[in-house]
Amino acid sequence: MSITETPEVTPERARYYDKIQGQNLSPLWMVFNRLISREPRSDCRPHLWSYAELKPLLLEAGGLITAKEAERRVLILENPGMPDSGRITTSLYAGLQLVLPGEVAPAHRHTQTALRFVMDGNGAYTAVNGERTLMAPGDFVITPPWAWHDHGNDTAEPMIWMDGLDIPILQFFDASFAEPYGADEQPVTRQTGDSLARYGANMLPVDHAPDGLASPIFNYPYVLSREALEKMKSQQEWDPCHGLKLRYVNPVDGAAAMPTISAFIQLLPAGFASAPYRSTDATVFSPVEGSGYSMIGGERFDWVERDVFVAPSWATVTHHPESESVLFSFSDRTCQQKLGIFREQRLTDPS
Amino acid sequence: MSITETPEVTPERARYYDKIQGQNLSPLWMVFNRLISREPRSDCRPHLWSYAELKPLLLEAGGLITAKEAERRVLILENPGMPDSGRITTSLYAGLQLVLPGEVAPAHRHTQTALRFVMDGNGAYTAVNGERTLMAPGDFVITPPWAWHDHGNDTAEPMIWMDGLDIPILQFFDASFAEPYGADEQPVTRQTGDSLARYGANMLPVDHAPDGLASPIFNYPYVLSREALEKMKSQQEWDPCHGLKLRYVNPVDGAAAMPTISAFIQLLPAGFASAPYRSTDATVFSPVEGSGYSMIGGERFDWVERDVFVAPSWATVTHHPESESVLFSFSDRTCQQKLGIFREQRLTDPS
Amino acid sequence: MSITETPEVTPERARYYDKIQGQNLSPLWMVFNRLISREPRSDCRPHLWSYAELKPLLLEAGGLITAKEAERRVLILENPGMPDSGRITTSLYAGLQLVLPGEVAPAHRHTQTALRFVMDGNGAYTAVNGERTLMAPGDFVITPPWAWHDHGNDTAEPMIWMDGLDIPILQFFDASFAEPYGADEQPVTRQTGDSLARYGANMLPVDHAPDGLASPIFNYPYVLSREALEKMKSQQEWDPCHGLKLRYVNPVDGAAAMPTISAFIQLLPAGFASAPYRSTDATVFSPVEGSGYSMIGGERFDWVERDVFVAPSWATVTHHPESESVLFSFSDRTCQQKLGIFREQRLTDPS
Amino acid sequence: MSITETPEVTPERARYYDKIQGQNLSPLWMVFNRLISREPRSDCRPHLWSYAELKPLLLEAGGLITAKEAERRVLILENPGMPDSGRITTSLYAGLQLVLPGEVAPAHRHTQTALRFVMDGNGAYTAVNGERTLMAPGDFVITPPWAWHDHGNDTAEPMIWMDGLDIPILQFFDASFAEPYGADEQPVTRQTGDSLARYGANMLPVDHAPDGLASPIFNYPYVLSREALEKMKSQQEWDPCHGLKLRYVNPVDGAAAMPTISAFIQLLPAGFASAPYRSTDATVFSPVEGSGYSMIGGERFDWVERDVFVAPSWATVTHHPESESVLFSFSDRTCQQKLGIFREQRLTDPS
Repeated sequence: MSITETPEVTPERARYYDKIQGQNLSPLWMVFNRLISREPRSDCRPHLWSYAELKPLLLEAGGLITAKEAERRVLILENPGMPDSGRITTSLYAGLQLVLPGEVAPAHRHTQTALRFVMDGNGAYTAVNGERTLMAPGDFVITPPWAWHDHGNDTAEPMIWMDGLDIPILQFFDASFAEPYGADEQPVTRQTGDSLARYGANMLPVDHAPDGLASPIFNYPYVLSREALEKMKSQQEWDPCHGLKLRYVNPVDGAAAMPTISAFIQLLPAGFASAPYRSTDATVFSPVEGSGYSMIGGERFDWVERDVFVAPSWATVTHHPESESVLFSFSDRTCQQKLGIFREQRLTDPS
Repeated sequence: MSITETPEVTPERARYYDKIQGQNLSPLWMVFNRLISREPRSDCRPHLWSYAELKPLLLEAGGLITAKEAERRVLILENPGMPDSGRITTSLYAGLQLVLPGEVAPAHRHTQTALRFVMDGNGAYTAVNGERTLMAPGDFVITPPWAWHDHGNDTAEPMIWMDGLDIPILQFFDASFAEPYGADEQPVTRQTGDSLARYGANMLPVDHAPDGLASPIFNYPYVLSREALEKMKSQQEWDPCHGLKLRYVNPVDGAAAMPTISAFIQLLPAGFASAPYRSTDATVFSPVEGSGYSMIGGERFDWVERDVFVAPSWATVTHHPESESVLFSFSDRTCQQKLGIFREQRLTDPS
Repeated sequence: MSITETPEVTPERARYYDKIQGQNLSPLWMVFNRLISREPRSDCRPHLWSYAELKPLLLEAGGLITAKEAERRVLILENPGMPDSGRITTSLYAGLQLVLPGEVAPAHRHTQTALRFVMDGNGAYTAVNGERTLMAPGDFVITPPWAWHDHGNDTAEPMIWMDGLDIPILQFFDASFAEPYGADEQPVTRQTGDSLARYGANMLPVDHAPDGLASPIFNYPYVLSREALEKMKSQQEWDPCHGLKLRYVNPVDGAAAMPTISAFIQLLPAGFASAPYRSTDATVFSPVEGSGYSMIGGERFDWVERDVFVAPSWATVTHHPESESVLFSFSDRTCQQKLGIFREQRLTDPS
Repeated sequence: MSITETPEVTPERARYYDKIQGQNLSPLWMVFNRLISREPRSDCRPHLWSYAELKPLLLEAGGLITAKEAERRVLILENPGMPDSGRITTSLYAGLQLVLPGEVAPAHRHTQTALRFVMDGNGAYTAVNGERTLMAPGDFVITPPWAWHDHGNDTAEPMIWMDGLDIPILQFFDASFAEPYGADEQPVTRQTGDSLARYGANMLPVDHAPDGLASPIFNYPYVLSREALEKMKSQQEWDPCHGLKLRYVNPVDGAAAMPTISAFIQLLPAGFASAPYRSTDATVFSPVEGSGYSMIGGERFDWVERDVFVAPSWATVTHHPESESVLFSFSDRTCQQKLGIFREQRLTDPS
């Protein structure tokens, strides 16, 4: 339903519209309902990518191109409603990245912020600002904007993770900057684990002055996230829509770990049927443990570990885990909250 | 210049790209440089709309459609680089609105935030949340998100103002909501000027709790802005790039008056030649007083009062007023600052 | 009533208490109720100083000592419950300052923050950071911490204002620093009115970076405050406890104009009887217009313009203006709010 | 040195001072230098309490009075410069609390905020808001303002910890409220460790709304703090004044864990000689590991584990650990920072 009726086009009006078009003018009243809709109404569609299908394709890419030649060997998960856009939602990018044993994805930096959510393999590294972190499945790793970063794999196994970036946001605001480092790898100047020790123990260095809005922690290890969820489970306080849901935070200010992307991890008990919920932040989910299905805007998506699925803005979502499940998810919620445009709704009846 | 070279397409690779396309996958390495550019690189173009040309076209629209039928009788200023997009920059909308004597633009509300910058006519009103403000040229009037608002003209003259809205932002984040009020006008429940008295005198009501992120002041009268500039002028402290430049603020927190749009007013003395400056917030300018020209990305735009011109992100801008001039401007700077992506540069040599 | 009973002193215990006293130890249980009381319980008493009595005494001081010899010729308003403490409440200092025609109160600076509320005379100046402001009755003038300041009177009349400072706060936290300027007056480098123009028009300089927590406006003129109250009056929205009450704010962040002192101005209509109210911020009041009386902790205080009276923490207060009245007031509320210890209560029945 | 000279007392002036004293007035110029000093100048003195001496006295108190009769069986560490004041610095209280096996310190609440730093014994509990935490040496435990709390000891050993409270702050601002719970212990409604899991893993519950300014974590275990310091040690980045120093933070906003008290833990390598440092926050130190001495205002204090010593505002401090040492400390720094009055100085030459 539209907020107003689009006025009829009379011959006189048609002539007028033609005339002004050449002057870079356009009549608002003819496009009002397209520009200002009663409810969110983008081309973003719900979709699920099966990891069982993705992994062989990704390994095939491993035979076609090196990480170095590709700069980053990533398959973009492109929303079926927005082909060729490089987007999984209107504002976010997601892809699956492969680094083979012995490879390095060369150092560069850009104003885009990135998250890595580790899916497969164990022990490859991401280096940020002189410190390397070794990545294990379920680890949530961030690359702050404009930070030099490279990835490498010294293990004997392929390493695969999901990348989440704010590429469309930087495009939209027209603020993309990037540069290559000029060498494959930056020098290592800090001990592995230094950032987590320094910033992650609910303490901060006495004179710490934040350098930008991103979290100074760059690996939130799954072993800690999972332990927190496990401990909370004993309290048996389940949110009807979310089960047990935590958001990753920047310890410096309690805001989202990244300035443009909110990330979450949640535990759902076996047999839980979540109450219907919708929000304006289209969300990318990836199960870390368990299996089940989710209903998104009336459509059913069956999932197992490492699948990726996306729920558009304002689509009603319910989760139905068969076994105890852990879901990682990310969205642009922190943007919307800062801009004052975030909405969410708990629905008593499923739509 | 690109950050990396796009890999060659071998027949084998081409087959692979075809295969994965059907699976909603896309190789990042083929589009890397399009997604992550070394510098801002949108389709936004510098452009100037002449008020002398706009006004007759707008008045002609006044004869073709009523404000009521149109909901809002506005000519969108559409960036020549982005036709049919409803955008003047990648993230912002601008248009010129006409309300004829006796007309009412019917009450509605939406999550989009609006600014009105008054160009022509004197004494028509905008009503927001039960209070009417009478508008005079140079007044900066805001409509907070989700606030009921209607416009009316009880004077004998046509009233024209520039609208600036965050329509593309709400589209991008997929968070547009709107509804009609159900009547042409909302009831008047507050005295004209009450908001300015209550919130605008560098005092706030003792127990004021903000309702959203927008300023509770909804008219920043030109008479006060101009007086502030005039008073400051005597200090003769000219910023080389900006002359004397002030930003409109929300008195509750000192942030931008609107959560998504920054607005500015600046005074430039006759004969001033501003130092070259560029920033990532594409900016819409409109001279309120004076005449002169501006260089934008190497192109010259001559302007007089009430013209509108736009400078894209990262384009180098200099201003060359012939007479003492006052420029109003707005951009998405506050968004970019909240998201940590704003950049600006003062250039010693013109580009 | 105490939270716990103080334990009996047996001879054995008495010996123990004696023994540990020499070791800089003391048994908490003997002083628990003194240290942690059920309700605020200081020595601060309600009191009123009559301006009719103060003015002749102040003028007499004018004959005994010069402003220069005195550094500041001020009579401290000392709370009768805390003699020789230099305090009007537990945390604040107040005094009446006199500057005679031709005098200068020499330039110095200190970490104490000061407010001046002008009572008598018109046109003497306070200079802060190179700018002079001319003071008129009802003007609220601030001196930020560590700012050079001097006062002078080039008029033909004595000038009298109330000083409010956070002297006890700096003593308590042991953070007092001060130094003389080395000359009677600092040089004038800014136009009178520059600060108000630059920061007071609901706009801020585009690149303004705050220098400390105090407001960059240093004179909030009564003519503007009074006009705001007058305008709001037409809305007839009276708070039962406060009438129309505004707090002076720092336009940079909406916080109190001073980092340690909150200041307020309120209008009460003739015949108003305010509902009983109490709060933990002991408050200094001074009527600017009108006459009436206030009940403070059960005691009646009749007041006219320019009197000063003080209400202790948690004492129940009601105001009973005979004519339309304007009350200026200040307290440590902003400290208490920042520290999370502020409480207030609206009482339906007077206590 | 004073900022100004105190004027001479002539007979005429003396008569005047006598006269106004009865009117609750006092001449500022006679006390200016006492009220506004060039540098901090309180009665607070540096001092050290030896745990070897304290422990027997505390155990002796255990035989004289029960925890229940005492409400809290605490020996106050009273600054030798401020006897009978219940203060260790001008703004803070510290004491050593003993809970014997089988005892309960009854439930109550107050607006004062408390920290517990565990010194001796292992496994007694503090209960806050329905959750019990088991305490081990070096644990930093907080009690938020107005939270019900009780302590109990189900172990076979006496339990001793240091209490740090903002009692003088609540007295000074006259905002003390307290009430007994009406039973010895509050019911246990949350699992031990729930708060730390929920709030301490660099994640926060998705819809967490802070309840006050205190950290929702109420035990910062030493095992985690120590591990963080140990990990950071390998980076060998020693601050010349502080070694490796961390402040305990509230994960919700990165501010101090308590709204009025800052707490720190620092590691100093064996043989380190810290560069001289002074600050306006008088600080209470307690070594957790190691031994050495500190110079405070020119005086030497030798310390071992569990001793407590205090450095006044602006006294120059250096630390000289003989073995690798860990120091816990707390002060009112967060108050001073919020009020804009904190100063610190790194001195190149010892004073």
